[in-house]
Amino acid sequence: MSTLDRHDTIRAVAFGGEVLRLLDQRRLPAAETYLECRDAADVAAAIRDLAVRGAPAIGIAAAWGLVLEARRATALGQPLPAALAAASARLAAARPTAVNLAWALARMREALARAPADPLAVLAAEAQAIQDEDLAANRRMGALGAELIAPGSGVLTHCNTGSLATAGFGTALGVIRAGFASGKIAQVYATETRPWLQGARLTMWELVRDGIPARLIADAAAAHLLRAGAVQWVIVGADRIAANGDTANKIGTYALAIAARHHGVRFMVAAPSSTVDLATPDGTRIEIEERDPAELLAFAGQRTTVAGAVAWNPVFDVTPAALIDALVTERGVIERPDAARLRAAFAPAARGAA
Amino acid sequence: MSTLDRHDTIRAVAFGGEVLRLLDQRRLPAAETYLECRDAADVAAAIRDLAVRGAPAIGIAAAWGLVLEARRATALGQPLPAALAAASARLAAARPTAVNLAWALARMREALARAPADPLAVLAAEAQAIQDEDLAANRRMGALGAELIAPGSGVLTHCNTGSLATAGFGTALGVIRAGFASGKIAQVYATETRPWLQGARLTMWELVRDGIPARLIADAAAAHLLRAGAVQWVIVGADRIAANGDTANKIGTYALAIAARHHGVRFMVAAPSSTVDLATPDGTRIEIEERDPAELLAFAGQRTTVAGAVAWNPVFDVTPAALIDALVTERGVIERPDAARLRAAFAPAARGAA
Repeated sequence: MSTLDRHDTIRAVAFGGEVLRLLDQRRLPAAETYLECRDAADVAAAIRDLAVRGAPAIGIAAAWGLVLEARRATALGQPLPAALAAASARLAAARPTAVNLAWALARMREALARAPADPLAVLAAEAQAIQDEDLAANRRMGALGAELIAPGSGVLTHCNTGSLATAGFGTALGVIRAGFASGKIAQVYATETRPWLQGARLTMWELVRDGIPARLIADAAAAHLLRAGAVQWVIVGADRIAANGDTANKIGTYALAIAARHHGVRFMVAAPSSTVDLATPDGTRIEIEERDPAELLAFAGQRTTVAGAVAWNPVFDVTPAALIDALVTERGVIERPDAARLRAAFAPAARGAA
Repeated sequence: MSTLDRHDTIRAVAFGGEVLRLLDQRRLPAAETYLECRDAADVAAAIRDLAVRGAPAIGIAAAWGLVLEARRATALGQPLPAALAAASARLAAARPTAVNLAWALARMREALARAPADPLAVLAAEAQAIQDEDLAANRRMGALGAELIAPGSGVLTHCNTGSLATAGFGTALGVIRAGFASGKIAQVYATETRPWLQGARLTMWELVRDGIPARLIADAAAAHLLRAGAVQWVIVGADRIAANGDTANKIGTYALAIAARHHGVRFMVAAPSSTVDLATPDGTRIEIEERDPAELLAFAGQRTTVAGAVAWNPVFDVTPAALIDALVTERGVIERPDAARLRAAFAPAARGAA
């Protein structure tokens, strides 16, 4: 096992021919259990209920959801186009903010349109390709992102962008895995990430399990940490990147970007190119998912506030491109991202050029 | 009952002659129970274990702790000076950051030195004066702070600075009570305030109970809220204000101040003048209490992160004076606080002049 592999042991999404097995992230770290999805409805429910989460992992799970649906419809002798259209609509509606979900579904549709003769094989091959390419993209991003970091640095990350959120290795957490393996990163700080505690529950689980030195902090402690000089880079993922570089990511990302700029700490977004949405001109056009306020009123079934309390629970925010020092995708690094630089890297004519 | 009184119904610290009754804030909002303290050790434990919290309330409780100790020592025929010195040391060590604790103990000592003839009566009168003056100061601050706010404003507050944190009415939450009663404030947003959830558990409890419209948000959602334009003032309390205006307060305050400045939202600190510590030149000299990392490893008694996870749990941070638009004490409003303005308002020669 290479040094890098030793720090990358987790896979959350696995297709087994008949079922899609998803590591149930709602139960981590207390229990490591797998959910078995047998059709698109199961997968959509798993996405909506956060059993699987993280923009790339959602896209991969949705792709496998269409494979399951195609198998189901075929076995029942139902017309495939109608079954796939209904399944796509159901999957797309499960989470609105992450663009990878719609991107993966469109990619599956296009693959089928190109080669309609053997739909089950085509869909399975495309889903596998989406998954494999995501892992490869993450390893590439890891190498590219780590190059930006000075040896011995401290980094802060938010939410979970690791193997649990992707096909494996992770986006921002992939940069951290690569940076730790190459000596660039000496210490990781992870925010709790309320209300769903992805940092405490998932990122710390990955980092402890993969032997990367990490300290958990309250979301509210990040600015104090940055002021102390312990962090050279804030590294986060993305759920959707608009054409001008504005980036939607887990609620709290924007506050970290403001605090990073205030302290002269650099701010990196690491995400696969499938996260870039050139059809969305800027962050004001990104739909921000608001989830059930109940997520803020209780924890693990225990009420944390008074009866009658009202909450506001947006689960993403938008970080303006002007606060981002580096956008890392598998196609390369864009420093100080803006519309011109993103167009040059990601517009169809530019594909392969970046 | 006046309009104002209708929004001010809670008292957390009550001396009953034999015992000090403290509303046990660890059990709110699930249960409204009172802790009965019979000596200074009981009070110190209540302070250390957060049954009573909030800088002014801690000072008041500590003052009553000395009264209880004086009664106990007298009843047992023990020498009073030694008993009071030991009790003072124990109480002062219970929480290091809030200056009101040391201030209240010093005030009790000075009162006794001025009139040593009837120590029990002198100490009880002084503790009662500290408590009564705190309530009066809060009502004065409320009026002064509310004057700064335009009618119909939205405000954001952090942690709990209400009746639970003081003799009653509150500091920052007192400004909010007064501002709501006078139509200045239309909507309150309260942060959860991890790790101890003072916002969710205590501030929301006070606001719902006193009929003030409030919405709970995750700490990490504050910057997103400010960007949306829903908030005109961030209003917080203080645990210690250095001579140059740098302000120690609950962890997360600093991040809110940075985000407020970034969005052109104004930032108000409301605290009694006893919070001002001219002996501390600036924020770098304020000791920041770090509490047990275990507070971050669990939530509502349930483990939230993987075994082996390490956390960093500073419970205060320092907001530089340059980020504070208005410092409100019972002596008046200081806009853009700095060393010269604080000296003019609070130096001994200036007492009564501000």
